[in-house]
Amino acid sequence: MTDPAPLNWTFKALPARENEVPFGEIASRNWNVLAGDVMLPAAVLRESALDHNLRWMQRFCELTGVEICPHGKTTMAPELFKRQIAAGAWGMTAATTAQVRVYRQHGINRILFANELIGRQNILYILDELDRDPDFDFYCLVDSDAAVEILEGALAERKSPRRLQVLVELGLPGGRAGVRSEAEIIALAERVAQSSHLALRGVEAFEGIVQSDSDREDRVRQFLKRLIDVAEICDNMGFFEGRPLLTAGGSSFFDFVAEMPRDELRSRFTIVLRSGCYVTDDSEFYQGTVEKLLRRSRAAASLGDGLRPAIELWAYVQSRPEPTRIIAGLGKRDASHDVTLPKPLSGVRAGSSKPEALGADYRTVRLDDQHAYLDVPPDSELQVGDMICFGISHPCTTFDRWQAMYVADDDLNVVGAIRTYF
Amino acid sequence: MTDPAPLNWTFKALPARENEVPFGEIASRNWNVLAGDVMLPAAVLRESALDHNLRWMQRFCELTGVEICPHGKTTMAPELFKRQIAAGAWGMTAATTAQVRVYRQHGINRILFANELIGRQNILYILDELDRDPDFDFYCLVDSDAAVEILEGALAERKSPRRLQVLVELGLPGGRAGVRSEAEIIALAERVAQSSHLALRGVEAFEGIVQSDSDREDRVRQFLKRLIDVAEICDNMGFFEGRPLLTAGGSSFFDFVAEMPRDELRSRFTIVLRSGCYVTDDSEFYQGTVEKLLRRSRAAASLGDGLRPAIELWAYVQSRPEPTRIIAGLGKRDASHDVTLPKPLSGVRAGSSKPEALGADYRTVRLDDQHAYLDVPPDSELQVGDMICFGISHPCTTFDRWQAMYVADDDLNVVGAIRTYF
Repeated sequence: MTDPAPLNWTFKALPARENEVPFGEIASRNWNVLAGDVMLPAAVLRESALDHNLRWMQRFCELTGVEICPHGKTTMAPELFKRQIAAGAWGMTAATTAQVRVYRQHGINRILFANELIGRQNILYILDELDRDPDFDFYCLVDSDAAVEILEGALAERKSPRRLQVLVELGLPGGRAGVRSEAEIIALAERVAQSSHLALRGVEAFEGIVQSDSDREDRVRQFLKRLIDVAEICDNMGFFEGRPLLTAGGSSFFDFVAEMPRDELRSRFTIVLRSGCYVTDDSEFYQGTVEKLLRRSRAAASLGDGLRPAIELWAYVQSRPEPTRIIAGLGKRDASHDVTLPKPLSGVRAGSSKPEALGADYRTVRLDDQHAYLDVPPDSELQVGDMICFGISHPCTTFDRWQAMYVADDDLNVVGAIRTYF
Repeated sequence: MTDPAPLNWTFKALPARENEVPFGEIASRNWNVLAGDVMLPAAVLRESALDHNLRWMQRFCELTGVEICPHGKTTMAPELFKRQIAAGAWGMTAATTAQVRVYRQHGINRILFANELIGRQNILYILDELDRDPDFDFYCLVDSDAAVEILEGALAERKSPRRLQVLVELGLPGGRAGVRSEAEIIALAERVAQSSHLALRGVEAFEGIVQSDSDREDRVRQFLKRLIDVAEICDNMGFFEGRPLLTAGGSSFFDFVAEMPRDELRSRFTIVLRSGCYVTDDSEFYQGTVEKLLRRSRAAASLGDGLRPAIELWAYVQSRPEPTRIIAGLGKRDASHDVTLPKPLSGVRAGSSKPEALGADYRTVRLDDQHAYLDVPPDSELQVGDMICFGISHPCTTFDRWQAMYVADDDLNVVGAIRTYF
């Protein structure tokens, strides 16, 4: 595994007087976030929560008899991939060829490409890599004759010795990619089964595309039921090569994917979940969906407490221009803003090292590129120079704002870091 | 100036068979985007538009007798900073200490820190750098006694020989940072004028915080009028040291800042604009605000055509699962989505190298992390494997999704690249 590059001046949370810090020396620097040892804003992962979440998901998969192939796009952090694989992950999921390239640089051999593989350079990279390394176990999706023709054309041209492993993707009217009807997906599966360049290895769907305010759980179940039916039909028709995969499962409904298939189907298929966000969870959106999951899944509930938020963003109070308004040094450049805005969790007065929890009367109401606007109670003690710890919604769009994040213990001592590759 | 690191596997648009490409060798590779030579999605800057925009803004400043100190946070691309300074920029504007660090690594000597300087490591970096380099010409903002006390404390502790140059920031009720009332800002200016550690060098505001649907232009003018009045009062009171700065001006209203001050004020103050987005403009939001600016500013109108959109995002059609729905390989990881979603500009059929303009009946209706959902007319010729060129709104939140962007001529030949530091 490639060593991550040292932290240097390109990293926005590097302490002022550090010039270049090798990854292996970060812990021995003894930085503490509360002591003001690192430049803010800084992103911090809580080691205890990471460790808990990794073990929680593995235990959930063991209890339900499924595999986890975590979506690496969430973090794009090979140090976390390594821990996910060490915890027992079946492989890693990717969405783009550029992501596969990062995974391959870090020695990941089994990659589920949960996307159509399209584009000259993208296909070229994958086929080169398959030719180069016989141990590279790669799966991608198809959802159209056009996509099949493009892949067959590329494979025929280079006379590849290996067949490309593909899964047919089931979609939903109005949704993202994926074949819309059962008749069409079965016809496509048959076409792949007859291809001399492709091998049909399973069926795939992403239930997160189901949009509905009221009956979302019911509609997710209906969609997954359709996927299971398609899987059975294709299997009965003898379309699959080897033991087929049935894969679905983002970060909100993976319990359905794990628990819906009957035993008979489990004996024939390897069921693969692809959640990415479980490793860090969050403080609002996914925390909410996971709470619902814990209430409905007996297996999840049996594990005791659920996933724990592992990401924190730390920033200074830059200004308190009105009694009920704080401006903090944290913006769209640092935090996700596509689901909800960063949530103030605790405040630390300058000179103190004791975070005090902030109530619901502290709210981020707007985010500019580099500033957060907070509504605060008029009697708030927080002043210019104090620190605020924020939780986030949606880890995917927070990780991509950081080339590195600190890893800290529960006293906010920095015990390491992860590097991201976006 | 530090050489940018070569493009390697960490760069998501690197061609499949390249391993490491030094910046100086990019042009000689003769990649062409339309020919499928680079991995998509890719971000492309049009050289002709960059060049035009740089000259346009310089000419506008000459005509109106003001200086431009471009906000570097937009692009965080030192190759563009270098061109901005070569075109005549007075300095570069920054919003965070981490940004100043990047600028300093690239030899930028005059930096306007359009923010309050708060936080132990942040202050430490700036004061170290001022002590280290007598030519470092640094200005930051204050908007509270608390901020003044923090800076004075830090300067007193280290017995710095230099006084820190500060500007007082005028704000707006309900807005971002900045002193709310004239009485308070004049009192704060007086306090700074009397400080033995600080030097009052001017007044600052950011008129972009004015939020209003109907009378925004009027309210921006009123706000800037207040800033001008405060500047005159402080000058008449003798608070300033040296020739003072009057600075405001984001990317939508810089004409007001350039044109409102009377000649008498111009003779006493250096007027400094801080627009960041002009260098690339965009295809929707800023294009709209600049069109308004061209209609109201005689100086701008006299320059002939206005700013030109320089940023394009290129992606493949991954799927066309319904006649009126295309899924493209472009997502929140690649494009801004905080103002409007990416705008399909043209399509290129596979095997062709001729972009065909797409009409208003092509619209991005949703963006996931790695996918764009497009509504398209049912008779659209675009198919799986074709390319789409997207324009964007808000360059700031697009640049930060790319560690490098290609620079191309009008035939989409790659003639270079820029590297970003976020």
